[in-house]
Amino acid sequence: MPRNIVEVSQFSRDDLEFIFDRADEMRALSVPDHRLAGRILATLFYEPSTRTRLSFESAMLRLGGNVISTENAREFSSAIKGESVEDTIRIVEGYADAIVIRHHEQGAAARAASVASVPVINAGDGPGEHPTQALLDLYTIRHELGRIDNLRIALVGDLRFGRAVRSLALLLTQAIGIELVFVSPPEVQMGDDVRDALTRARIPFSDESDLASAVRDVDVVYQTRIQKERFSSDAEYARNKGIYIVNAETMANLPEHAIVMHPLPRVDEIAAEFDRDPRAKYFREAHNGVYVRMSLLESLLAGPWSNERGTALHE
Amino acid sequence: MPRNIVEVSQFSRDDLEFIFDRADEMRALSVPDHRLAGRILATLFYEPSTRTRLSFESAMLRLGGNVISTENAREFSSAIKGESVEDTIRIVEGYADAIVIRHHEQGAAARAASVASVPVINAGDGPGEHPTQALLDLYTIRHELGRIDNLRIALVGDLRFGRAVRSLALLLTQAIGIELVFVSPPEVQMGDDVRDALTRARIPFSDESDLASAVRDVDVVYQTRIQKERFSSDAEYARNKGIYIVNAETMANLPEHAIVMHPLPRVDEIAAEFDRDPRAKYFREAHNGVYVRMSLLESLLAGPWSNERGTALHE
Amino acid sequence: MPRNIVEVSQFSRDDLEFIFDRADEMRALSVPDHRLAGRILATLFYEPSTRTRLSFESAMLRLGGNVISTENAREFSSAIKGESVEDTIRIVEGYADAIVIRHHEQGAAARAASVASVPVINAGDGPGEHPTQALLDLYTIRHELGRIDNLRIALVGDLRFGRAVRSLALLLTQAIGIELVFVSPPEVQMGDDVRDALTRARIPFSDESDLASAVRDVDVVYQTRIQKERFSSDAEYARNKGIYIVNAETMANLPEHAIVMHPLPRVDEIAAEFDRDPRAKYFREAHNGVYVRMSLLESLLAGPWSNERGTALHE
Repeated sequence: MPRNIVEVSQFSRDDLEFIFDRADEMRALSVPDHRLAGRILATLFYEPSTRTRLSFESAMLRLGGNVISTENAREFSSAIKGESVEDTIRIVEGYADAIVIRHHEQGAAARAASVASVPVINAGDGPGEHPTQALLDLYTIRHELGRIDNLRIALVGDLRFGRAVRSLALLLTQAIGIELVFVSPPEVQMGDDVRDALTRARIPFSDESDLASAVRDVDVVYQTRIQKERFSSDAEYARNKGIYIVNAETMANLPEHAIVMHPLPRVDEIAAEFDRDPRAKYFREAHNGVYVRMSLLESLLAGPWSNERGTALHE
Repeated sequence: MPRNIVEVSQFSRDDLEFIFDRADEMRALSVPDHRLAGRILATLFYEPSTRTRLSFESAMLRLGGNVISTENAREFSSAIKGESVEDTIRIVEGYADAIVIRHHEQGAAARAASVASVPVINAGDGPGEHPTQALLDLYTIRHELGRIDNLRIALVGDLRFGRAVRSLALLLTQAIGIELVFVSPPEVQMGDDVRDALTRARIPFSDESDLASAVRDVDVVYQTRIQKERFSSDAEYARNKGIYIVNAETMANLPEHAIVMHPLPRVDEIAAEFDRDPRAKYFREAHNGVYVRMSLLESLLAGPWSNERGTALHE
Repeated sequence: MPRNIVEVSQFSRDDLEFIFDRADEMRALSVPDHRLAGRILATLFYEPSTRTRLSFESAMLRLGGNVISTENAREFSSAIKGESVEDTIRIVEGYADAIVIRHHEQGAAARAASVASVPVINAGDGPGEHPTQALLDLYTIRHELGRIDNLRIALVGDLRFGRAVRSLALLLTQAIGIELVFVSPPEVQMGDDVRDALTRARIPFSDESDLASAVRDVDVVYQTRIQKERFSSDAEYARNKGIYIVNAETMANLPEHAIVMHPLPRVDEIAAEFDRDPRAKYFREAHNGVYVRMSLLESLLAGPWSNERGTALHE
C-alpha cells in the first residue's frame, strides 16, 4: 500500500489495476466534487514543468481540494540560501496535506519522502524517474486498447535519456505477454539497465532500424522527442532528430487498431497532419494524466492508502 | 454569440449591452457565489502582466471557480523545448474549462482559439489586441456617464503603439454620436488603420496639439503612458513623455461632469495629486475589469454562450 | 484595534494575547472551514520568499478563502514600467479583500497601508520588519512554555542584520520578567537601537561570548543564520559562521525544559542530528506560522478588527 509515489518499481500488478480502476471512476466524476475539500496540495517545482504542475493542480482542484505552489523553487526559495530539501519538506509539511516535488537531482524525491509526515509524490527527479508519467502512459494503453497484457509495443526515439519511455518499459514488467521493439538512433539506444530488467522479467525485446517496417504488427507506437540538450553539437542533434519521424509511410503501415502515443512536448517527430487521425492518442494521453493523478491523490489523502493518517491539521 | 474572446471586432452592439448589463449584475453580487463551482480557468501568460492575470483570477474565484496559472510560460514551459502554441493549448484544454492566454506574438490567441475545444480569451497578443481591456474601458464610460453614445472623447498620449487606446477607438465604432479628439506627440500619432475604420463608421475625429484647450468640451479624457521601449534613445523618450501631462491646468479646464481614464500603469502622465479628484476614474476603471471579466467568464462557462458545451470533464 | 499589520510596535499586550488565543483556536480547527468563503487574499511578493508566501496562502485556504498571488512582482509586474507601490496597491485592492506585501524597500508596507482601502499585511520590508515572523516566534514560546513572561532567552548568531531576531527582541518589551542574553560574533552584534528600546522597557540584557556556557540557565535558545550576503569576503563569512553552532556540547548544557528555536532557513548552525530532540522546536515554529496567520486573517477579514469594513465587493 503506497504511502508515497516515488518510483515505478513500488507498484504491484494489483496496485496498478487499483489505480487504473479508480482513474476510470474519476473520468466519470461530475463537478463540483468535494471529497478533498479543505485539503491542501503543495507543488514544489525546483525545475520548471508547467504541464506536469498544471495537471496535478487540476487533479487536486477537481476533487474539491486546494493548491499552494511554487513555479521555480530552485531560484526563488530558501534553497538559494543553502537550505536542504529535507528541511524544506519538514517546513512545507506544516502547510499542506501532500507534497508534489520536481527536482533536478536524482533521489531528491526519495529523500523528501523519507522525512515527510505527509505523502510525497515524485514529479520527476532529474535523470531518475517520473512515475506518474509512466502510470498515465500505461493507463492510456489500458483505456484505449482494453488491456495491458499481450501487446507488441514499439518504443521510438531517444530511449537512452528519455525518462518517460524508460519508466514505461520498467512498468511493463508487471504485464504479461509483452513484446518490445526498440527503434532509436545509435547514439541514444536503450540502456543495459532496462534491458537487464526486461530479461529478468522474461519480456522479449529487439532492436529495429526501420520504423515504417517495425510498426506493421504493433499495437502501440510510443514516440519520443530527441532532446537537443543531450548532444554536443547542433549538427549531431540535427542528424539524430531527423531519423525516425512518424510520417505518412509510418501511418500507412500502422494497423487500424493500433495507437500512437508521445509523452510530449513534441517538436516535429510526429507530423501535425496526423493529429486528427483516430489512432493519434497523445493529447488524450496528456488528459489522462489528470484522471490518474486524481486517482493517486484521492487514494493517498482520502482513500485506502490514507488509513494511518489523520485528517486534522498537521501538528 | 461569442465562443471565444479574441478581438474587439467580434462584438455587436447587442453583445456589448449584454456584457455590460451582466457586469452590472456582477457588481452587486454577494459572496460567496458558486455558479462556477468545480470549473477551472487556466491562465497562460507567455509575457508577464501581473495585473491582468490577477484580475482574471479574481473574477473566476468570485464566481466560485478555481484557477491554475503560469506566470511566465515563455521561459518556463515546454515552449522552450519547441512546443507550438497549438500543442500547448490542446494539452491544457484537458486541464481546464477555459483558457486565458497572453502571448508576445500577434495572432497567437486566434491560433489558440482555432484548435481549442474550450473557450479561449485573448489577454493581449503582442502588438495585436487586448479586447477585455477595451471592454472594461467602454464599460467604465457607460457606468460613470450612463451611456456610450453622444460623447466627445479625448485620446491622449501614445496613440500609435498603445494597444488599449487603439482597441477602444475601434470598439467605439459600435456607438453613435461619438467625436474623437487625438492629442499625441508627432512621433506616436494614431495610425491610418484606425483612422480608416473610424471614417468608414462615420465617426468624426480631429488632431489637437494643446491638451489644456482640447479638454474644455469633452466628456472623457483617456490618457495613456508613453512607452519607453518604443523610442531609440532616452532623450527622444524624455522629449515625448513630457509633452502631454494631465496637470492642474488640464483639470481646471475639464468640465465638472467629465471623467479621466487611464489603462495603467501610470508613470507621471497624470499627477498623483488628482487621484482623489472625483473625476479621476482610473483606479475604478481597473476595478471594473473584474466585473467585466466575471461577465465574460459566466457567459462562456455557464451562461447563454455556453449552450453547446457540456459541463462534464473534458474527454 | 489593528487595521493593518505593519510593525511589531503596533501591538499592545492585549492584542498579543488576543492573537495568540485565537491562534490556539485555529490549531484545533477541523477542515473544511468556510468562515472566509468568497474572500480573496492577494500576495504581492516583490522579493521571493517561498515559505512565507506558502504559509500565508495555506492560512487563507484553511479558512475557506481564496488566493491570488505573484511570486516575483519586482521583475514581472508593472513595477518595471515605473508604477509606484501606491498605484499597484490601489489597483490590487479592487481584486482582493486583503493584501500581503513583501518588498525590498523599508517602509513600503507602511506606504501600501496608507493608501489601501483593504487590510495590508507586511511580510517583510527589506531591512525593516517582518512582524508576523515575530508574532509566530513569540506564540511558539507561549505555546511550548505556557507563558511569555519570566523567561531567560539567549539570542544567538547574526543579531545585527537578522530581521526576525531584532523584531522578536522588540516584541519582548511587551512581556515582563524577561532577561536577554546576546551571543554573536563581534561583527554582527545587536544594534544600539534595539538595546535602547530594551533599556527603556527595563529589560536587562548582557553579551556572552561562550554559547555552551550561556545556555546553562536559559528557557529559550533562539539561533539565527549568519547571512553570507552581509560579508565582503568568503573568508570573513566563513570565520563568522563557524563561531556559534548548536552542537552536542550546547545541547548537553541546555536544560531539559528549554526549547531551541530558529526562524529558518538553516544552513549548519544547528546540527541536523538534534532535529528529533524534543527540545528542537524550529519546524513546529514554522508550522505555528500558519495558525498565527489564520488568526490575523480572520480578525482582519471576519473578526473584531473588521467591524468598519463591509463584506460586499470592493467599489
